[in-house]
Amino acid sequence: MPPLRPSSHLLRALELQQPHRYAPRRLLTTRSFATTRRCNFDDPRKYDPLKEWRNPKPKKWASRLRMYFFVPLTLAIMYSITGEKPTQLEGPTIAEKDALLKRENGVTTSSPMRLRMEAFIKSQQKEIVAALEEVDGSKFTIDSWDRPEGGGGITCVLQDGNVFEKAGVNTSVVYGRLPRAAIAKMRVNHKALDPSVESIEFFAAGLSLVLHPKNPMAPTVHLNYRYFETADEFGNSSAWWYGGGCDLTPCYLFDEDAIHFHNSIKNACDKHDKAYYPRFKKWCDEYFSNKHRGESRGIGGIFFDDLDETEKDQEQLFSFVQDCLGAFLPSYLPIINRRKDMLFTEEQKQWQQLRRGRYVEFNLVHDRGTSFGLNTPGARVESILMSLPLTARWQYMHTPEVGSREERLLEVLKKPREWV
Amino acid sequence: MPPLRPSSHLLRALELQQPHRYAPRRLLTTRSFATTRRCNFDDPRKYDPLKEWRNPKPKKWASRLRMYFFVPLTLAIMYSITGEKPTQLEGPTIAEKDALLKRENGVTTSSPMRLRMEAFIKSQQKEIVAALEEVDGSKFTIDSWDRPEGGGGITCVLQDGNVFEKAGVNTSVVYGRLPRAAIAKMRVNHKALDPSVESIEFFAAGLSLVLHPKNPMAPTVHLNYRYFETADEFGNSSAWWYGGGCDLTPCYLFDEDAIHFHNSIKNACDKHDKAYYPRFKKWCDEYFSNKHRGESRGIGGIFFDDLDETEKDQEQLFSFVQDCLGAFLPSYLPIINRRKDMLFTEEQKQWQQLRRGRYVEFNLVHDRGTSFGLNTPGARVESILMSLPLTARWQYMHTPEVGSREERLLEVLKKPREWV
Repeated sequence: MPPLRPSSHLLRALELQQPHRYAPRRLLTTRSFATTRRCNFDDPRKYDPLKEWRNPKPKKWASRLRMYFFVPLTLAIMYSITGEKPTQLEGPTIAEKDALLKRENGVTTSSPMRLRMEAFIKSQQKEIVAALEEVDGSKFTIDSWDRPEGGGGITCVLQDGNVFEKAGVNTSVVYGRLPRAAIAKMRVNHKALDPSVESIEFFAAGLSLVLHPKNPMAPTVHLNYRYFETADEFGNSSAWWYGGGCDLTPCYLFDEDAIHFHNSIKNACDKHDKAYYPRFKKWCDEYFSNKHRGESRGIGGIFFDDLDETEKDQEQLFSFVQDCLGAFLPSYLPIINRRKDMLFTEEQKQWQQLRRGRYVEFNLVHDRGTSFGLNTPGARVESILMSLPLTARWQYMHTPEVGSREERLLEVLKKPREWV
Repeated sequence: MPPLRPSSHLLRALELQQPHRYAPRRLLTTRSFATTRRCNFDDPRKYDPLKEWRNPKPKKWASRLRMYFFVPLTLAIMYSITGEKPTQLEGPTIAEKDALLKRENGVTTSSPMRLRMEAFIKSQQKEIVAALEEVDGSKFTIDSWDRPEGGGGITCVLQDGNVFEKAGVNTSVVYGRLPRAAIAKMRVNHKALDPSVESIEFFAAGLSLVLHPKNPMAPTVHLNYRYFETADEFGNSSAWWYGGGCDLTPCYLFDEDAIHFHNSIKNACDKHDKAYYPRFKKWCDEYFSNKHRGESRGIGGIFFDDLDETEKDQEQLFSFVQDCLGAFLPSYLPIINRRKDMLFTEEQKQWQQLRRGRYVEFNLVHDRGTSFGLNTPGARVESILMSLPLTARWQYMHTPEVGSREERLLEVLKKPREWV
C-alpha cells in the first residue's frame, strides 16, 4: 500500500499561482488575475490584506471574482438567446458551476463538498493564524492570489518571530485538468475514474502547515488535510477522496508532550472509527522516515490518503477530517506554551540545527509531494519550500554522548513507540 | 545526451565502507576489516593515522591487507598442488589480481590503470589536504578503512576551521559486481559490456572534494574525478571510462576569480583537445542546475562522463584527467587566498547562508549521484552528505535589492556566461 498517492503530489505541485500544465477548457479569453498581494504588518503604513481577508468587502473582491461570475453569466445569456450551447459540447466546468453557486447561494451545508471544504479550511486557517499570532506576539505576512483557471491560495508566513523561527499556514484551491497518464495512476485506488478519456477536470483543496519554533525544547509540527474530486464531461462529480495527517518532530523528547499530542489525535479519530488511529499512526511512521538513516523524521502522529466511499460516506469522512483539523490547536498549543520560554544552552541549539538538517533531508529526498512539486515546471517553489526551516546544519559524523537526551531521542526515532 | 551515467551513481553510492549489495565472489570466508579509524589532530595524545597514511609502515598495514594477499596466495598454492582450480570455474577476480600485483611489483607505469589511478588520486589527496591545511591553519580529521571485498576509502574532513566552515576531500576505491540491470543501462554508452551474463566484476576509483569557506566573499568549490572499469569472467579488463569535473559556486561574484578559475581549467583541457573545454563547460552548466528555480548552482567549470576508447586511448585520457586534477590547486588557491580575509557584513553572511540553502537543494533534489547513493541500502550516508555545508538557510520570498551585488549574481546564475 503506497502511502502517498498521485492526488497529493498534484495538490502540492499545483498549489498556488503557477501557470500549470493542465489548464481547464476556457471558453472565453479572460485576463489573468494571478497577481500576488503582499503586506508586512510591522509597517502600519502599508495596506493590510489580512483585514480584508478577515472581513472581505465585496467591492474589493469584485475585480478578482469578475471572471468567475462573468464567464458563466455570459454563457448563460448566450445560451438563453440562441437556445444552443456556444462552441462546446459539454456542460459547464465545476469551476464555472462553483463560481455561480457561490455567488447565488453562498456556502451552506447543502453546497457541493468542494465549496464546503474550501470554506472550512479557510476558516480554520484564520483561526490557526490568529492563535499562533497570539502565541508569538507578532504578525504573519499574508500572500494571497487567485488562479485564472479558478481557485487560488493564501500563504501565511511568520519568519524570525518571537516564538517561531519559521511558521507557514497555507490554503490552496485548485481547479484543473488531469491528463490520461495521471488518471491511469489514480485508477489504482479510484475505480470510478474513466480511463478512456483524454483528460478529466479535477478540484483539489487543502490546508498545510509547518511550524519551526526557535526554542529547541519546543517541537516542530506539520499538518496537511486535503480533499480531491474529479468531474465527468458534464461537470458532475465522479471520484472524490480525502487525505492528510499531522505529525510532531521534537529535538528534545518530553514524554508528556508526545502523549498529549497523540492522545488529542487519537480522540479525534476514535470519535469516528476505533481502527483509524492505530492504522493511520502506523502509516505515518512508515511515511515520515529518513530511510537512508534508518530513523523517523519525528515521533509521528497520523497520515492517511485516498479515503473515499469504499471507506465511509462523504459526510462521515468530512466530519472526520473536520475533527482532525479541529484537534490541531488543542494538540499543539499546550506544548508550545510549555516549551517556548524554557532555558537552553548553545549546545542544545546546535543539536536543534542538526535535527533541522534531518528535516530538510526528509523533505528534499523522500517527500514525494515536494520532489514532484519541484520537478513540475512552473510550480511555485517558495510555497513548496516554505516547509523548510529557516536554518539548518550538517556536521560530519556527529554522535550524541552515551546516555544523553540527544541519544535517547535517536533511539526513539530508530524504533517508533506507541504513545497512547 | 544524459549528463550523468550509472557508473558515477554507483561510484558515489558504493563509495566507502558499506556492506554493499553486489558483493564479489568470495572463495574463502574472510573476516571483515571494514573498521574505521578516526583521529582528531587537535588532541596530541591521540593516535595519528595521517602520519601512517603519509608514510605507511608495512607492519601496521599487515592485518588489513592480509586478506588481499592471503586469499590469492592460498588459491595459488591450492592450484599448484592440485593442478586444478578449486571450486570456481573462472580465473581470479581483478581484486585478487590487483592485490597480488601490488604486493609483488608495487605500482609502476606498466601496472593496470586501476592501480595507477588509485595511486594517483591518493597522492593528489595528500597534496590537496596538505595545501588546504596550510591555508586554513588547522588539520583535517582522517577516516580511512578497507572493504572486505577489496578496496577502501579515505575521508578527510575539516569542520569549523579558520578559513573553511566545512571541507571534505575523499578518495574511494571499490571492487564489486554489477547486476544485469546495471549492465543493461551502462551498455548504452559502452558496447563492450556483455549483456548476456548475470553479473560482471567492476572497479571504481575516484577523488571527490567540496570546500565551503567561512568568508562569504570566498567561493565554494566542488571537484570529482573517477575511473571505472569492468572485467570479464577471467578477470580481464573489458570496458573502462573516465568521468569528472570541477565547478565554482560563489556567493559574491568577482569576475577575476571566475576568469582565473575557468582559464586554469581551459588550459588543462586545451593541452589535450581544444574542443574539450567548450564541450565540458556546457555539460557542466546543464548538469549543475537548480531547474526548479531556473538558476545554476554556481558559475560552472567542466563536467564529463563516459570518456572511453571511442574518445581517445586510455593513456591520453588518463593524462587528461591527471592534468585536470593537477590544475585544481592552482585554480583555487589564489582565489581562496585573495578572499579568505576580506571584510564582510552580517547581511552578506546571511546571503551566503541562503546560497548554501540552494547548494543543499541541488545536492538533495537534483544530484543523481547523491539521491542514488541515499537510496542504496547500506550506503555510507556521512560520506555522501559530506558535500553539504555546515550551515544553511531558507527564507520565504527573499529577493535581493535592485542593482545589488546579490542581484547581479542571480542574473549570472540565470544565464550562464562565457568566462574565457
